[in-house]
Amino acid sequence: MKTKVGIINVTGYAGAELARILYGHPEVKLTSVTGRSGAGKKLGEVFPHLIDLDLQIDTGLSNVDFVFSAMPHKESAKEIIPLINQGMKVVDISADFRLKQPADYETWYGFRHSAPDLLPETVYGLSELHRNEVRSARLVANPGCYPTGAILALAPAVKEGLIGPDIIIDSKSGISGAGRTLSLRAHFSEANEDVTAYGLEGHRHLPEITQELNLLGGRQVSVTFVPHLIPMTRGILTTCYAPLIHSQISTNNKGEAAVRALYTSFYDGEPFIKISQNPPHTKHTWGNNLCLIYPTIDYQTGRLVVISCIDNLVKGAAGQAVQNMNLILGFPETTGLDSIAVYP
Amino acid sequence: MKTKVGIINVTGYAGAELARILYGHPEVKLTSVTGRSGAGKKLGEVFPHLIDLDLQIDTGLSNVDFVFSAMPHKESAKEIIPLINQGMKVVDISADFRLKQPADYETWYGFRHSAPDLLPETVYGLSELHRNEVRSARLVANPGCYPTGAILALAPAVKEGLIGPDIIIDSKSGISGAGRTLSLRAHFSEANEDVTAYGLEGHRHLPEITQELNLLGGRQVSVTFVPHLIPMTRGILTTCYAPLIHSQISTNNKGEAAVRALYTSFYDGEPFIKISQNPPHTKHTWGNNLCLIYPTIDYQTGRLVVISCIDNLVKGAAGQAVQNMNLILGFPETTGLDSIAVYP
Amino acid sequence: MKTKVGIINVTGYAGAELARILYGHPEVKLTSVTGRSGAGKKLGEVFPHLIDLDLQIDTGLSNVDFVFSAMPHKESAKEIIPLINQGMKVVDISADFRLKQPADYETWYGFRHSAPDLLPETVYGLSELHRNEVRSARLVANPGCYPTGAILALAPAVKEGLIGPDIIIDSKSGISGAGRTLSLRAHFSEANEDVTAYGLEGHRHLPEITQELNLLGGRQVSVTFVPHLIPMTRGILTTCYAPLIHSQISTNNKGEAAVRALYTSFYDGEPFIKISQNPPHTKHTWGNNLCLIYPTIDYQTGRLVVISCIDNLVKGAAGQAVQNMNLILGFPETTGLDSIAVYP
Amino acid sequence: MKTKVGIINVTGYAGAELARILYGHPEVKLTSVTGRSGAGKKLGEVFPHLIDLDLQIDTGLSNVDFVFSAMPHKESAKEIIPLINQGMKVVDISADFRLKQPADYETWYGFRHSAPDLLPETVYGLSELHRNEVRSARLVANPGCYPTGAILALAPAVKEGLIGPDIIIDSKSGISGAGRTLSLRAHFSEANEDVTAYGLEGHRHLPEITQELNLLGGRQVSVTFVPHLIPMTRGILTTCYAPLIHSQISTNNKGEAAVRALYTSFYDGEPFIKISQNPPHTKHTWGNNLCLIYPTIDYQTGRLVVISCIDNLVKGAAGQAVQNMNLILGFPETTGLDSIAVYP
Repeated sequence: MKTKVGIINVTGYAGAELARILYGHPEVKLTSVTGRSGAGKKLGEVFPHLIDLDLQIDTGLSNVDFVFSAMPHKESAKEIIPLINQGMKVVDISADFRLKQPADYETWYGFRHSAPDLLPETVYGLSELHRNEVRSARLVANPGCYPTGAILALAPAVKEGLIGPDIIIDSKSGISGAGRTLSLRAHFSEANEDVTAYGLEGHRHLPEITQELNLLGGRQVSVTFVPHLIPMTRGILTTCYAPLIHSQISTNNKGEAAVRALYTSFYDGEPFIKISQNPPHTKHTWGNNLCLIYPTIDYQTGRLVVISCIDNLVKGAAGQAVQNMNLILGFPETTGLDSIAVYP
Repeated sequence: MKTKVGIINVTGYAGAELARILYGHPEVKLTSVTGRSGAGKKLGEVFPHLIDLDLQIDTGLSNVDFVFSAMPHKESAKEIIPLINQGMKVVDISADFRLKQPADYETWYGFRHSAPDLLPETVYGLSELHRNEVRSARLVANPGCYPTGAILALAPAVKEGLIGPDIIIDSKSGISGAGRTLSLRAHFSEANEDVTAYGLEGHRHLPEITQELNLLGGRQVSVTFVPHLIPMTRGILTTCYAPLIHSQISTNNKGEAAVRALYTSFYDGEPFIKISQNPPHTKHTWGNNLCLIYPTIDYQTGRLVVISCIDNLVKGAAGQAVQNMNLILGFPETTGLDSIAVYP
Repeated sequence: MKTKVGIINVTGYAGAELARILYGHPEVKLTSVTGRSGAGKKLGEVFPHLIDLDLQIDTGLSNVDFVFSAMPHKESAKEIIPLINQGMKVVDISADFRLKQPADYETWYGFRHSAPDLLPETVYGLSELHRNEVRSARLVANPGCYPTGAILALAPAVKEGLIGPDIIIDSKSGISGAGRTLSLRAHFSEANEDVTAYGLEGHRHLPEITQELNLLGGRQVSVTFVPHLIPMTRGILTTCYAPLIHSQISTNNKGEAAVRALYTSFYDGEPFIKISQNPPHTKHTWGNNLCLIYPTIDYQTGRLVVISCIDNLVKGAAGQAVQNMNLILGFPETTGLDSIAVYP
Repeated sequence: MKTKVGIINVTGYAGAELARILYGHPEVKLTSVTGRSGAGKKLGEVFPHLIDLDLQIDTGLSNVDFVFSAMPHKESAKEIIPLINQGMKVVDISADFRLKQPADYETWYGFRHSAPDLLPETVYGLSELHRNEVRSARLVANPGCYPTGAILALAPAVKEGLIGPDIIIDSKSGISGAGRTLSLRAHFSEANEDVTAYGLEGHRHLPEITQELNLLGGRQVSVTFVPHLIPMTRGILTTCYAPLIHSQISTNNKGEAAVRALYTSFYDGEPFIKISQNPPHTKHTWGNNLCLIYPTIDYQTGRLVVISCIDNLVKGAAGQAVQNMNLILGFPETTGLDSIAVYP
């Protein structure tokens, strides 16, 4: 018998993507969904591509064994805390439990956390880095889309001490990352044929990135992170720059081979990570849960350059959430996540 | 044990899409592929998203039980004829066996057909209309992308005699329909932020459309078909216009309801056809095998307007080919084709 | 000394485009602008590309000699009527004065017209068809974007009686036609990689089209008009279909040459109309005031097919408005409108 | 009487853009054009938007007073050298004279320079930095598109010694930068809905950038430059990262104000440079010759971040070439270049 699963706030892009992925999952059944908007409607009225799920959008979940929350931050915690207290296991796609320091929520999100006692046990659900903790977690904080690409790109180098702490992360994201809520920056005629940077005053995904990189390397990194919006729907390409520590690695083709070997080894056996032979394309992750990583060396300057690609709505949100659910529920990690990218 | 399947010319978009779909098919295994280009390379070198198939592109097929040909027209027949003679069952994605009259190949494609004796038995593989013949066919001619959308949109009205023979078909296609071969019209900077009509002197998909509509209605239709290229990768939306025969149907909301009922009934039980409640979006078929159909009436003029949406590479090519294979090999028709569209 | 010009509601796309064009106009100076939003701000704060105009968005116009209104319908009439009564000359980009029958505003726009007495003298500002009336008008109703492309495409054939009254108009528009007001259909992730039809219940631009075609041909046409949104910012391509009256024209290459000759002659000397040799691209009108027209014959069916391309914000709105202003103020018609399309 | 101007190789995107801009230039007349392809055709056959120029594409230039070369590198030098020897003044849009060291052409472009004696006197035509030398030059090497955006973004900081030599330049370019020559990476279905990095082994625009920055700062910079292709036609956004020298500037809002003041002062009076108040959009330079620059400080890390936007075909190619021509021929620098960006 399939596990019954619910989604809190199915009516955003992450929620809809969760529903899509869960529909193809052989071990669970999506049986209950709520929505900030659309309550009372059939899911297929709001999202015609989901008509076959034959679900109604309710105001509250009913009778499920596992919950995803795709509510916006601050609201998500309110929904989740009572569920956790009832013993439900939850993957939270919002930011509400990602940061370990309660004060960070005030600094970065402008609200006082309502359950700081839950933060220590919450697992940051980047499955590749915290697989075992995820397995036994009752609450998993699903990483942000930018941190997923950035941390996976940098983890081997930081963990192995190959690079100094001065790191530049330049990300290029499709517009679906701005969500389904209407805004001028996501208005077609504004975003099409345009590229712009944003969040220069400090993007909320920065503390997630530094928290994880500090943990991995055992020391403070100094990260500048600049996200950009580019005119496509899905995908994030992240380009990371950091100085190699020359005592660790030579800045030539031998060093490059060593870096590739290290990355390959670090991610050996990971079903959703591929170390690519050439600079990767976001298109090659379109609709699936892969993260493509390309580490290389700028010989002239002795810098490590690492590029990663993900689909922001899959590995950057709903796919990773299902990966975490698989771990928690004891299914093979790739269950329901084995489709190939839709190309071209 | 899985049926071994081969693809002739995997290196175009239809071939690559076949490989993608077949990878997720539980009853068959893609074991051999050839390519007009790329012979000797690993499939993953040409198409990184297909790296997990772990296949080499060969110059000839080896040891398969079923074959798809994704060769261009004229070349495809050359590859297929010997296979058919050896008893292989084949779905041909090219145009080489779609038209019943040998002379039509000279008129529309500029070559003399090399196996006119095969034409009578070849089944035009629009599964919804020729399901039973497909089941027992040894050679199926997979429909063109435009004909798929246009014929499915018009079939109920033509079959039931609701409309007169004067039909306008105005199609809007994504650029992947122009293939992977380089051309100025598919060059990004030319195609982006642009729309144009083409094929006004007579597009090769027209005779397919008229052949099927004539057959369905039992009389000659008079079709003007104008395809357009629009700046997106996948999808065809087809808008069809025809005069209602007023003795058959009233041109008001009652007539509209009757038309909807007729369409719903005509396609009752079809797994890949949905009669939509609102004007459909190609986006809601992105990556899957659905055809969405929206019939309506222009009350002022008494015209039937029918709109259909497909993904040109799936229902318009590779997906339909797999649907045909399923029929031939006796699998449930939706096997390997049940994924939901990737939205947004 | 330059004529002082004002824009009512500069903060939509048509208003901003007017400001752009007027900035390059050698005979007038934009000196006053209002906005539904943004009042009190500098124009360059709302539209950085207009920073050099150095204007403030006010709540009312001050001290101008000529006025454009880019207010939405219903609101525009309220602004314009007092100006007309004061003797101001006005080009109205809204729909408020386009239709001659007062009752049509209730039918199509849902409001009762507040100045039906102004309708008879208002000139429908399709300059090519009403040049002389525009010259002496005090109020010009600037045509809608779809009607501009459709009427220009059909005018010669209708006027000369080449075609029967059964006309299909299938238009494909960029998303800027949906305006700057936020909406789900203009949300990037919804509109990108998508095409859809809309307005099937009767688009508001239909009565404009029939009003003008009826006038041109001296009899009632029966038009089905279906607009589509395609994923680009600017441009409308309109494909028109109508049966040729065979006593008037032969349906072969001679007939085609005759039709081309007729179109060429009809638009002889028109600075903004080009009869193109090949199916035209919207890209070739990007940012300028041209209308490209391609008439051809479907020999098999005896139908006339005419395709037109415009930039919906220029010839379909702001450019045509300036063309009308040039006529009213006695400047050469192309003044300020002679830039070449920005390609690619 | 207007100066007669010629273009060598008008049939690429830079050549066509030159023709477009020159058509609107009041002081010169484009009278002769050649093409690598299309010789013998009318210009309007190859580029319909240029039909009004009424020129024929010839195999050689005839009777002109000033020449632009838009030939590819290596070929351009061959065409230009005899012209220079005849006393013609030339702006070369290719790379053939940009680098000062003859050996660099072998390293970066793989050919031996055929006129190394011309290199010392050739002026690198970034007008804002070399205005006076351009005025008296007989040969101007027009900068590459990436170097234009990058050097203008960094020049004030490098010149004033605000930053250390460790510079990261991350550029995002529209696809027109890949030219009109067909290629898989510029094939619509490959480039649409995709972003990728390229040139990681060392892009040819790097030596231009370092040459100029070294010159400006009087010492060697250590630049990592990674260009990316994003799915739009025109525009380059460049994000530059460098460590502030803390003795020079404080890393807080006061420092930021100081940096802005310095940038504003450095470019004071420059007609084509705007220091923007917010992170700029490439869309706000679409079709015109502006470079928008936004300098800011990452307070947490003490890094300078500077973002610039240009239209790669205008300020990054043809517009800057005309700017240089204006300087050489003694016209006001903005002549023919004063149009506002086409937005949205």
